[in-house]
Amino acid sequence: MSHNPFSEFMQRLDAAAADTDALLDGLLTERLVPGELARPARLLEAMRHAAVGGGKRLRPFLLVEAAALFGVPRGQALLAGAALECVHCYSLVHDDLPAMDDDDLRRGRPTVHKAFDEATAILAGDALLTFAFDLMSRAEVHADANVRLQLVSELARAAGIGGMAGGQMLDLAAEGRFEKKKLDEKDVTILQAMKTGALIRFGCRAGAMLGGADVTQSGALDRYGRAIGAAYQIADDLLDESGDPEAMGKAGGKDAARGKATLPALLGAETAKKHLGALVADAQSALEPFGEKAAILKAAARFIAERRT
Amino acid sequence: MSHNPFSEFMQRLDAAAADTDALLDGLLTERLVPGELARPARLLEAMRHAAVGGGKRLRPFLLVEAAALFGVPRGQALLAGAALECVHCYSLVHDDLPAMDDDDLRRGRPTVHKAFDEATAILAGDALLTFAFDLMSRAEVHADANVRLQLVSELARAAGIGGMAGGQMLDLAAEGRFEKKKLDEKDVTILQAMKTGALIRFGCRAGAMLGGADVTQSGALDRYGRAIGAAYQIADDLLDESGDPEAMGKAGGKDAARGKATLPALLGAETAKKHLGALVADAQSALEPFGEKAAILKAAARFIAERRT
Repeated sequence: MSHNPFSEFMQRLDAAAADTDALLDGLLTERLVPGELARPARLLEAMRHAAVGGGKRLRPFLLVEAAALFGVPRGQALLAGAALECVHCYSLVHDDLPAMDDDDLRRGRPTVHKAFDEATAILAGDALLTFAFDLMSRAEVHADANVRLQLVSELARAAGIGGMAGGQMLDLAAEGRFEKKKLDEKDVTILQAMKTGALIRFGCRAGAMLGGADVTQSGALDRYGRAIGAAYQIADDLLDESGDPEAMGKAGGKDAARGKATLPALLGAETAKKHLGALVADAQSALEPFGEKAAILKAAARFIAERRT
Repeated sequence: MSHNPFSEFMQRLDAAAADTDALLDGLLTERLVPGELARPARLLEAMRHAAVGGGKRLRPFLLVEAAALFGVPRGQALLAGAALECVHCYSLVHDDLPAMDDDDLRRGRPTVHKAFDEATAILAGDALLTFAFDLMSRAEVHADANVRLQLVSELARAAGIGGMAGGQMLDLAAEGRFEKKKLDEKDVTILQAMKTGALIRFGCRAGAMLGGADVTQSGALDRYGRAIGAAYQIADDLLDESGDPEAMGKAGGKDAARGKATLPALLGAETAKKHLGALVADAQSALEPFGEKAAILKAAARFIAERRT
């Protein structure tokens, strides 16, 4: 462990990102796996555009570092992390579609429907989501089929109607697209816990599953995951209000213009920042059972709250 | 076994449809499963619009009947079949979107984006696809985790870039959307084996997996599934050229108008009908190892070739 957990954390975040990118780069090639008949070039290119060569890879990082607390071999955690990242990337592709948030830029590059076309973007998102379950069920993730099944099941629930997809639906509803309804703090908190929280929390829980964590350890990582998931969204919303579009690689202020439901918009930036601070403290406190081993994940909580891009 | 396998088959097809419908009706409610935070009403309604109350349920039927060859309890096969049907239904929702085939009617009812809106249809498709993997990983499907994992893995590959989603991409490309390219018989055969064949074949294979089939039995059901998958698409394309739109519940002749790649268009209706007959014969011959027990599945092959709606 370095003397400076924050710089050590940044190195590990970069390493997880580089390893995840290399892994997805190698998985998303023309090479077929058993059961596949062909991989059409245009669809493969669109999936690669969405999933290779960019992103902080925060979710795989969390999964890898949570698994590392238990000494899980890095290769296993990276493959599970790549599966999780495929779900995240698919959600961005569909979220950016004209009928959804209608965004032209993502990570400083054209969104998939801009670089290709809408139909290709729809299918690329579908195929990435499907690919996630292919990856997560592979023997290389864990020798025990029960562990892989639990990962598949929890990933499906974190991503589905009761998790991310449901959160996206609530998010669109909050814009007033379907009916006018004012969301209160509790509504917005649930919305965010589903829309962004569920996958982040899953990443932390998945590390515990891979590691054969006991109930206390699982509970600790679950609490940590819930807290940083909520913190991530508040930080993101604060950034959208005040951040630098060029550094973010996407347009700022769009969420407010759309009337998106955010805690900063509802409570004001100062109160939201206090919430954020409390969430980071809770996340760090949740990790006490792991002692010094958890320094990197504690630094991650700080990073999530303080990031500027 | 009845003296008339065809009327027995029709009864069993109806029974599988009714049971699948009741099962999906009960699964797609407001009741949360562990890991879910909420089920937003609008998304749930859209998923129900797509997946409850209609359809022949051919894929679940095939899965249930293939499993029945091995005495698999019907409840297990029905749940696996419901998972498979969710994948099929999601693909219809996305296929009907304006950027894809732009259809207003499906099974005689407005398509999801017509009954709701495009964003809701995109999310409902995403959530149905995700739900399929939730269902398939449930303990009620099979006691052995290895069997459930194999089902999850094969379903992902049948539905993904190397299967159905890839086939949809090839289908759009065949319309000349991206570049002009003339498909030959081999191209069209691969396209159809991916677009519609993969899920039908998976249904037959899944029955074998649930039943703990030996290599000969698995091979027989795989060959049967491949043959009826191909037959189904040719019959569908012949119907689209000549069928009654009212009976079909969707517009006819649209595929030809779009320049869709079909074997009847490429080879002429008469040659396509000969292909169809040969596929049905091959499907029925593949089932010889099962003897009289397979009469229903043999009748299904005939039905697929001869159906009028």
